[in-house]
Amino acid sequence: MTGERADQTQTVAQTSEEELLRQIFPLLPPGRATIVPPGDDAAVVAAPDGRFVVSTDVLVEDRHFRRRWSSGEDVGRRAAAQNLADVAAMGARPTALVVSLVTPADLPVEWVLGVARGLAAGCGPVGAAVVGGDLSSGPVVVVSVTVHGTLEGRAPVLRSGARAGDVLAYAGVRGRSAAGLALLEAGVVGPDDARTAGYLRPEPPLAAGPVAADAGATAMLDVSDGLLRDAARIARASDVAIDVRYGAFDADVAALQPAARDLTLIAQTDADAAGVASRTDALVRDWILAGGEDHGLLATFPEGAVPAPFVQVGRVTAGEGVTVDGLPPGGSATGWDHYGSR
Amino acid sequence: MTGERADQTQTVAQTSEEELLRQIFPLLPPGRATIVPPGDDAAVVAAPDGRFVVSTDVLVEDRHFRRRWSSGEDVGRRAAAQNLADVAAMGARPTALVVSLVTPADLPVEWVLGVARGLAAGCGPVGAAVVGGDLSSGPVVVVSVTVHGTLEGRAPVLRSGARAGDVLAYAGVRGRSAAGLALLEAGVVGPDDARTAGYLRPEPPLAAGPVAADAGATAMLDVSDGLLRDAARIARASDVAIDVRYGAFDADVAALQPAARDLTLIAQTDADAAGVASRTDALVRDWILAGGEDHGLLATFPEGAVPAPFVQVGRVTAGEGVTVDGLPPGGSATGWDHYGSR
Repeated sequence: MTGERADQTQTVAQTSEEELLRQIFPLLPPGRATIVPPGDDAAVVAAPDGRFVVSTDVLVEDRHFRRRWSSGEDVGRRAAAQNLADVAAMGARPTALVVSLVTPADLPVEWVLGVARGLAAGCGPVGAAVVGGDLSSGPVVVVSVTVHGTLEGRAPVLRSGARAGDVLAYAGVRGRSAAGLALLEAGVVGPDDARTAGYLRPEPPLAAGPVAADAGATAMLDVSDGLLRDAARIARASDVAIDVRYGAFDADVAALQPAARDLTLIAQTDADAAGVASRTDALVRDWILAGGEDHGLLATFPEGAVPAPFVQVGRVTAGEGVTVDGLPPGGSATGWDHYGSR
Repeated sequence: MTGERADQTQTVAQTSEEELLRQIFPLLPPGRATIVPPGDDAAVVAAPDGRFVVSTDVLVEDRHFRRRWSSGEDVGRRAAAQNLADVAAMGARPTALVVSLVTPADLPVEWVLGVARGLAAGCGPVGAAVVGGDLSSGPVVVVSVTVHGTLEGRAPVLRSGARAGDVLAYAGVRGRSAAGLALLEAGVVGPDDARTAGYLRPEPPLAAGPVAADAGATAMLDVSDGLLRDAARIARASDVAIDVRYGAFDADVAALQPAARDLTLIAQTDADAAGVASRTDALVRDWILAGGEDHGLLATFPEGAVPAPFVQVGRVTAGEGVTVDGLPPGGSATGWDHYGSR
């Protein structure tokens, strides 16, 4: 028991990089596309159709997560999820990740192993490997992941292919990450509350990416910065207008109402029932239209070609810009800027 | 002129992520292997022989560089160099990089653009592109680069293929990075002194990697942690012994003597001539055998197969471990541990 407790409290400064890597490697999934695994200067990964998809994302402590809310495993899962979603959004299947991890000297080794387990939990089910990494010390935790995928002969789905007459469709949940973060920030609940899971451990619909490509998706991206903001990116790249139908998100509205009501009651103890209801609805609407980091897939398809699990959530028309039920969105529904405020 | 000065002092907090990316993209080289360039959720890169090589490395401010010594361009060049060397060490040719950049809010935009220019300076000559990136704020600068390469049909050169009877060979300079860092740390010179260039802007012999593979190299790596430490990695992975011949580095010894002498004289003002000479020689020997981050290529070849620009620097024999001229190396010649001390 004493030895176990000692392991739990050992810090990265009390070990060596090589020893840490020795503990990390067995936790990582091997993956089907790995030709040369970690251990040399570089790994070698299969790219059967002569191309590979690549994207990178970084998570910074106190900017993208807080250690009092997110375990190492949570951060690993989130880093995997947001990167894997970028590959799916091209219509590709993930094959391999590499990870740079910066850690404060006093970070428990156990937290680092948690990151490895979280990455494995995200990658394993889709057959992707972690094929390389680098460790360094630094003042805060930084997890930088680069993800790779294979298009398996498909044409990549870009942001620029939407055409007037297409339908807008979405796969995945909306607003769960924003709601979970709001609950944690308000101190209403702790990270054990199930309603925070969408923020702490998002689960993008990864298999939907290749499905969309095979069904003829004309444009696609993963919604990391908010539905309206990311829809505007498709509109701009494709030179079209997009109208979002808010009623398409009824199931998300129902799921988010309890959290929104809790937060409204805390903020406005003296409000009347109508005020609470109105404020709750506004909060839910903001989470759904502007909340980031659910990492669902937003795509456009020719009329009649929307495949499950996508559901139609709007239309593509001639023109420019994004509207909601025909009206300018207004409010705070502009999404997330990593250098600005929410 | 006023507008120009304003641009020079603008910080990343005074701009948006999108505006910053708009300024960065034109600085980046397009590369010959890029199929889908930056701008979508992921890039698509060619992998003509159905495989790609991938490696990642991270540079952290005040751990791997100091901003008072390294310009943004220096850091970009160094990040490119150390990553490109990992690809070369597999016998591959670099094709594409992705970069995560974490920046303090008060970092000048000009410094960030410098990083982009430095990456371009490193990648451009070898035809590699920067195909993606992510920006975030954080307490210190962190540059995480993932590099990709193509083997062009070659078998990857691993660390594990050295055989007794092979010769040990090296391409590149030795000790320049360690000497440059020592000069800067001692305050002997500033970053404008030419003797610091090997630390601030290492130039690995990238073309030598594929040359080595074509010549039948049996093992190879890039020397990032010191010659003896990295030679020990080949010895361990290949289950052989390696003997380094110090006399093979005469040209490096001559090039490093002035810097070592300057540092010795500063540290030991009352030493006699013999003491200075002895200490100078020891310092040079330490830089050559244990200095990290020159990113030259250390490889093993069958007898008689060493191609230029490699030069023979030792022998592979049966047994285990690394010796110098037949003797245990001793001293501080153990190289760099990112979690330990030098």
